[in-house]
Amino acid sequence: MRVPVPLRRAYKLINHGPTTLITSAFGDRRNVMTAAWVMGIDFDPAKVVAVIAADTFTRTLVTASGEFVVNVPTVRMIDAVYAAGQVTGEDEDKFATHGLATEPASIVGAPLLSGCAAWLECRVVPEAHMQEQYDLFVADVVAAWADDASFVDGVWRFPTDEDRTLHHLSSGVFVTSGDIVKAKR
Amino acid sequence: MRVPVPLRRAYKLINHGPTTLITSAFGDRRNVMTAAWVMGIDFDPAKVVAVIAADTFTRTLVTASGEFVVNVPTVRMIDAVYAAGQVTGEDEDKFATHGLATEPASIVGAPLLSGCAAWLECRVVPEAHMQEQYDLFVADVVAAWADDASFVDGVWRFPTDEDRTLHHLSSGVFVTSGDIVKAKR
Repeated sequence: MRVPVPLRRAYKLINHGPTTLITSAFGDRRNVMTAAWVMGIDFDPAKVVAVIAADTFTRTLVTASGEFVVNVPTVRMIDAVYAAGQVTGEDEDKFATHGLATEPASIVGAPLLSGCAAWLECRVVPEAHMQEQYDLFVADVVAAWADDASFVDGVWRFPTDEDRTLHHLSSGVFVTSGDIVKAKR
Repeated sequence: MRVPVPLRRAYKLINHGPTTLITSAFGDRRNVMTAAWVMGIDFDPAKVVAVIAADTFTRTLVTASGEFVVNVPTVRMIDAVYAAGQVTGEDEDKFATHGLATEPASIVGAPLLSGCAAWLECRVVPEAHMQEQYDLFVADVVAAWADDASFVDGVWRFPTDEDRTLHHLSSGVFVTSGDIVKAKR
């Protein structure tokens, strides 16, 4: 079940470096794009950075709306995760093509992808130079959600192999989130 | 054995989101700091961004030298990885405290940490606003290295459980890089 995550814990949803799906919307258009280059940069207020290349339809929608959602998919969605990084959404609705169901976000206009393990609703911070020079978008996390079987009391669990997160290595080859290991305290 | 990695492949060394150790040096001082917030932002020329907080000794050394190394540690080093994130290196040599051996880098003055799986030698790109506003350092990757049993023909292998990379969840709890899975092409 999708439950809200306090914003001060939002960074934990992507701290282990999962490959994400970025959803965006503007007017009657929407899109989904695979993005490995997304990370937290602050705890409280929670902030992220994401690389959104200049030649993508996602860039057009994010620039127009000032919003996006970082969705954290699981092994169940591996084929869609890879495919969504291979084609543009300018000419087709990738949600329909790849059978990706959505639900409304709470604050931003971009949709949440059903079946993911975590979601960060983001609002772009205007930083024109970073966007133009590095395709790098700073954003405030304005709402965060997690599946309550996958993220429990602020810590990731991976209840089944299918619930593991995906971490892209290269060309459709991923490594999953593996064993939990603990350092000496 | 440590072997050079072509710069156009350097992003692959951290694309799956491992927690890293950042080494730095200036004059006769050096330091090592745990950093989960490091990622690639460009392929060629290879660039990374790293969050280096303003109140850290690493920040002092990186600002003074304009250089750092992103080291990718493995499960073998888990205790040092966690410990290096808990204390400042201003008053002690964390390499000695945590038994971390080093070897010289090829281009930058910061050392490479022996026993890691991959290394990116980085030179800071002067972006004062990003540094001051977000603690975010853009850097060019000027040399890259990998253990030739862990990174083969441009793809990560994890030959043993001890060779897996670490991905910090919270408070010394990590998830390791797990199984290799492939999407339909």
